Amino acid sequence: MSENTDRFEIAHLARVELFSPKPQETEDFFTRFLGMYVTQREGQSVYLRGYEDPYQWSLKITESDQAGMGHAALRTSSPEALERRVKSLKDGNVDGRWSEDQFGFGKTFEYHSADGHNLSLVWEAEKYVAPEELRSKILSRPSKKPLSGIPVKRIDHLNLMASNVTSVKNEFERHLGFRTTERVVDGDEEIGAWMSSNILGHEVACMRDMTGGRGKLHHVAFYYGTGQHNMDAAEMFRDYDVQIEAGPDVHGITQGQFLYVFEPGGNRIELFGEAGYLHLDPDAQTKTWQMSDIDTGLAIGGAKLPWETYFTYGTPSPLSLDQHIEQFAHFGPGAEPAAVAEAVEETPIEIDHSRAVAGAPA
Amino acid sequence: MSENTDRFEIAHLARVELFSPKPQETEDFFTRFLGMYVTQREGQSVYLRGYEDPYQWSLKITESDQAGMGHAALRTSSPEALERRVKSLKDGNVDGRWSEDQFGFGKTFEYHSADGHNLSLVWEAEKYVAPEELRSKILSRPSKKPLSGIPVKRIDHLNLMASNVTSVKNEFERHLGFRTTERVVDGDEEIGAWMSSNILGHEVACMRDMTGGRGKLHHVAFYYGTGQHNMDAAEMFRDYDVQIEAGPDVHGITQGQFLYVFEPGGNRIELFGEAGYLHLDPDAQTKTWQMSDIDTGLAIGGAKLPWETYFTYGTPSPLSLDQHIEQFAHFGPGAEPAAVAEAVEETPIEIDHSRAVAGAPA
Amino acid sequence: MSENTDRFEIAHLARVELFSPKPQETEDFFTRFLGMYVTQREGQSVYLRGYEDPYQWSLKITESDQAGMGHAALRTSSPEALERRVKSLKDGNVDGRWSEDQFGFGKTFEYHSADGHNLSLVWEAEKYVAPEELRSKILSRPSKKPLSGIPVKRIDHLNLMASNVTSVKNEFERHLGFRTTERVVDGDEEIGAWMSSNILGHEVACMRDMTGGRGKLHHVAFYYGTGQHNMDAAEMFRDYDVQIEAGPDVHGITQGQFLYVFEPGGNRIELFGEAGYLHLDPDAQTKTWQMSDIDTGLAIGGAKLPWETYFTYGTPSPLSLDQHIEQFAHFGPGAEPAAVAEAVEETPIEIDHSRAVAGAPA
Amino acid sequence: MSENTDRFEIAHLARVELFSPKPQETEDFFTRFLGMYVTQREGQSVYLRGYEDPYQWSLKITESDQAGMGHAALRTSSPEALERRVKSLKDGNVDGRWSEDQFGFGKTFEYHSADGHNLSLVWEAEKYVAPEELRSKILSRPSKKPLSGIPVKRIDHLNLMASNVTSVKNEFERHLGFRTTERVVDGDEEIGAWMSSNILGHEVACMRDMTGGRGKLHHVAFYYGTGQHNMDAAEMFRDYDVQIEAGPDVHGITQGQFLYVFEPGGNRIELFGEAGYLHLDPDAQTKTWQMSDIDTGLAIGGAKLPWETYFTYGTPSPLSLDQHIEQFAHFGPGAEPAAVAEAVEETPIEIDHSRAVAGAPA
Repeated sequence: MSENTDRFEIAHLARVELFSPKPQETEDFFTRFLGMYVTQREGQSVYLRGYEDPYQWSLKITESDQAGMGHAALRTSSPEALERRVKSLKDGNVDGRWSEDQFGFGKTFEYHSADGHNLSLVWEAEKYVAPEELRSKILSRPSKKPLSGIPVKRIDHLNLMASNVTSVKNEFERHLGFRTTERVVDGDEEIGAWMSSNILGHEVACMRDMTGGRGKLHHVAFYYGTGQHNMDAAEMFRDYDVQIEAGPDVHGITQGQFLYVFEPGGNRIELFGEAGYLHLDPDAQTKTWQMSDIDTGLAIGGAKLPWETYFTYGTPSPLSLDQHIEQFAHFGPGAEPAAVAEAVEETPIEIDHSRAVAGAPA
Repeated sequence: MSENTDRFEIAHLARVELFSPKPQETEDFFTRFLGMYVTQREGQSVYLRGYEDPYQWSLKITESDQAGMGHAALRTSSPEALERRVKSLKDGNVDGRWSEDQFGFGKTFEYHSADGHNLSLVWEAEKYVAPEELRSKILSRPSKKPLSGIPVKRIDHLNLMASNVTSVKNEFERHLGFRTTERVVDGDEEIGAWMSSNILGHEVACMRDMTGGRGKLHHVAFYYGTGQHNMDAAEMFRDYDVQIEAGPDVHGITQGQFLYVFEPGGNRIELFGEAGYLHLDPDAQTKTWQMSDIDTGLAIGGAKLPWETYFTYGTPSPLSLDQHIEQFAHFGPGAEPAAVAEAVEETPIEIDHSRAVAGAPA
Repeated sequence: MSENTDRFEIAHLARVELFSPKPQETEDFFTRFLGMYVTQREGQSVYLRGYEDPYQWSLKITESDQAGMGHAALRTSSPEALERRVKSLKDGNVDGRWSEDQFGFGKTFEYHSADGHNLSLVWEAEKYVAPEELRSKILSRPSKKPLSGIPVKRIDHLNLMASNVTSVKNEFERHLGFRTTERVVDGDEEIGAWMSSNILGHEVACMRDMTGGRGKLHHVAFYYGTGQHNMDAAEMFRDYDVQIEAGPDVHGITQGQFLYVFEPGGNRIELFGEAGYLHLDPDAQTKTWQMSDIDTGLAIGGAKLPWETYFTYGTPSPLSLDQHIEQFAHFGPGAEPAAVAEAVEETPIEIDHSRAVAGAPA
Repeated sequence: MSENTDRFEIAHLARVELFSPKPQETEDFFTRFLGMYVTQREGQSVYLRGYEDPYQWSLKITESDQAGMGHAALRTSSPEALERRVKSLKDGNVDGRWSEDQFGFGKTFEYHSADGHNLSLVWEAEKYVAPEELRSKILSRPSKKPLSGIPVKRIDHLNLMASNVTSVKNEFERHLGFRTTERVVDGDEEIGAWMSSNILGHEVACMRDMTGGRGKLHHVAFYYGTGQHNMDAAEMFRDYDVQIEAGPDVHGITQGQFLYVFEPGGNRIELFGEAGYLHLDPDAQTKTWQMSDIDTGLAIGGAKLPWETYFTYGTPSPLSLDQHIEQFAHFGPGAEPAAVAEAVEETPIEIDHSRAVAGAPA
């Protein structure tokens, strides 16, 4: 092994912007149920943070015609690392542009992933400082755990749906220093990759869009750190009419404790229990799951990830969630390619991002 | 309400006998994985107890051609209560007979449920007294928690599959003083009933056999008391090749935390987490679930109870579990009655119990 | 054993009234932190219930000069049982009187325990029926789990401090049909007793007041049913300045998961995790703890119950909690009897209940 | 901030060697109760690993006259990082020597901490490869979770007692690239420091020895990742006569879930629940706890860390644990300096390491 000097240049996923056609209900979802604090309102956007998020915000909700991810930003480990990562991207012909218009963060390099996702790199970040009444006695905690719902600590990771998993993965490995901790292959094709810039199982994952779509969001995950809170959240979502997709259970891949729900705007949100497997061994090999073992990979317990949504629905989606479920009800591992093709034809994914994302790259 | 003087005459489910065509593997399942102690071996049977079971045994495994329930015995609250319950059964034309041949228990009244299940009532029970080295410092605990697997505390409840739920339920209510805490109806038909002789949600439940079969065992449940142990057990079963059917999750019905697996002999076993809803209110009404609300009834989280097994497979089963799953793969809520009938025709449930159950009623 | 026909005549602890010199802060404690619903306000009192309490209220907070217990009421299993229990008390020369002035409950027999605690028996109880927006999809749950704090499900049990444990215990056994599941003896003297009218480890417990006081409240417990929620609550109390006395840990006695805190009015409140050991065996013997084994009895983990409060402080208390801690800082197992006597002399417990408890027996 | 290029050069704590005067009982403790696998026996030593430890061993138990830490080794992130760290130590006048005699690891740089602890740096490590029967279906898991006791996943962190915390801390910061996430000060003096080479709260901590001793081990921690398992372990230790010092509870410092016990050889072992606070923010400031806030720092719940052991007992100890407790029973925050001095005088800590540690630096 030659030394990988890029290995820790990305510190972590710092923030994500979600589009929502029902911005007030989406905001309520994150504040009432997940106990996030609102830190700013600006135009058609509201900014939120979990009680252990270190910066001014980790989640921005922006009103839009459709659900989807506005952008996601990774924070580098130093200002120099930011310069080096941008140089690497540019040397690899990944174009982008600098901007500086996000509340609480400084200059940011914005680019598209190989599959078209809006991604950003940033170093300058304003630390959140709690007012006296929100200051916690636990010094590592930037603010008190709120008293509303089952509060998440912080943003955890991002999962991108892509037409080509390998291309997205390669970019993260080559330009951002990520290592791929685990991946799933179907014959020769990579259909899933979990990538990390630190010792977590993944800061970013990428899964194949089984409808052939490009550049969608599969989910954003928020961290509990405690398995029981996934069950507490499921009970809350059941009682308060939030649609549960799957879980609580534990993925074999990453050993992550999952609960998937759809926020009212239509985006899939994961609640993440304990930290999962921590990759302390610096030269561990990537673990490769074959389809023959995928049952354990998807869930250690008895949970089934539903084909009609989990492997086919991302945002933006041309169909509403209900319509999508109806259309994909009989889609599955044994379904005819024809059926898939047909479904894809009916689901064009181009949407106009220009209206909602002020700071998006041209 | 006129006073129900029978309400507490049955104390609890004291013991169950399981038939197994793979008795050694079934025994290993309960000792290695569930930490049960073997207290006796006798003929083709082995007797076991969980570390908080109060008597000599709560589980008897008997070698047999097919899986199934040998018998289940309820202990009464007093010797007088036993006499009164037997009188009530006889007055209701439920025949049975007295026997006294079970290790560690005294005279027992054996009878068949309205659907043909072998049931017993008993008062005399020999308390388990641990040898010095197994004595726990926790005085309510009859023996130390063992160090093997994820040990269950004790037997919890029994779930019977029946062709006619109402008949079975009526017997428990009329003759044994049980109250029905919750039930599920499909139109006018009762398809599930959860019945209790104390404040637990159920000591005995009964579910309709969707194949029309009679007198089968759906499952026996063992108690953890701690939700996390259901997930610990699922992880163990996954790694050690024990087939998980569904869970961990929480039923809306009873609020019971469930994990269903198949022991190597083919019987379904439930691992039961926390105590669920406790029925302290003495004159609470039975809660009735309609099919329109059944999703929440079956699981509060995202778990799906599989139609091809959960609603169709009980023991004894004429088909092996694998065969059953194959045959019932497309069975479901919308399946044609014809398909059901056909399946039933192919699955005669008569088996000869005489060989294995020495003390069974003639 | 001759048959104990009184065994199940008391169903459970239905309600407790707490006095508080800081009624608004006490109310906030139960609503903001423990997620209890306010169902009524009346005079100097407010009535509350947990989301799974079956009646109109389980907790009444009444403004008063001092902390303490206004009264506690046990609900019987039937109207006939109420008559029989009152007759038994009267036959045992325990005087009392009937009243009918508590919101949501019918005629009530009020009496003093052998140590002077205000106790009541009641049958008639109005069931809580949630308005549409609070109705839960989980049918056994009378109302949705609220979104505030770490909500308790319901009232659990009562712990009385007494000058003479045996007298109190005898009354519960003789007149109310309770069985004593566990007790602690110091030589020949009973210093603790845990008593149950169902299969729980205790509906009522009694502990010796080491200062020699009479008729005080040790604590009222509220039920979580989930161990993790005790830790969640501890974290909340720490961050929001509620004084934690001990826990989370698990008592060897009852195997109950405990967390003790002082509500702002000065009363000790226990948060109770899982259900603890369930007494299904109807003729189990009372377990007796000797002082030599008391360490395990008090806590299975490493928690220490502080002598300066746990064994000496009850309400009403002539000293504020802070003063009490200061005075009893050096009190402990090895302290001189003289010191105890002196402490007692300085802490007269007579208070005038007449002002606050309208319905108290003369 | 100028860029810290050393920040991630140490990957993690790879292994610890414990001395034990009761090696068989110490081995039994780690295998029976904590489910560790024995991978090698050699001379007076046995090598063990948790089921998720990546290398041949993480724990070596070596027979010795006294308890204590033989050595602890940190693995670097690359071979080049090892060279750079050794150069930095040497440039800082920290002497050491290379050796290559530890089973399963290659060339190792051995040196003494500023307080005299035996520390090592290593890159070459042989990965553990499970035989077929121990292979897990969960690919990130190097071997099945065993069925014995409450198994730990892996080694977690190291806590060193020192006469001078700042000196030890400075070495880790200057030469090994650690950052100090949290520290405790008493006036101007640092009495505790938690240091990390990745995003965990600490790979290594250092606490002041209140008896003034030098170079002792406070504890080695093993990782569960699940809070409930700390309580499961406490219950097991209680029943099987392993001495519990404190916990389960959660430190405010690091938000680590702790349970401290003494293994039969006398060393303090911590069982570590969930991952605690993860330090994703790359330029977060060190959090400093004042003595006025130390209560929350030590425990978020009600646990008390006992002065007679937690702040005074480390290994090697001239007194047996029982003797130590007796001698330090009245030691505490308010104790006279004289008493401390006297205690120290009676407890010389020099022991001869030469016999037991073959590979120790001269």
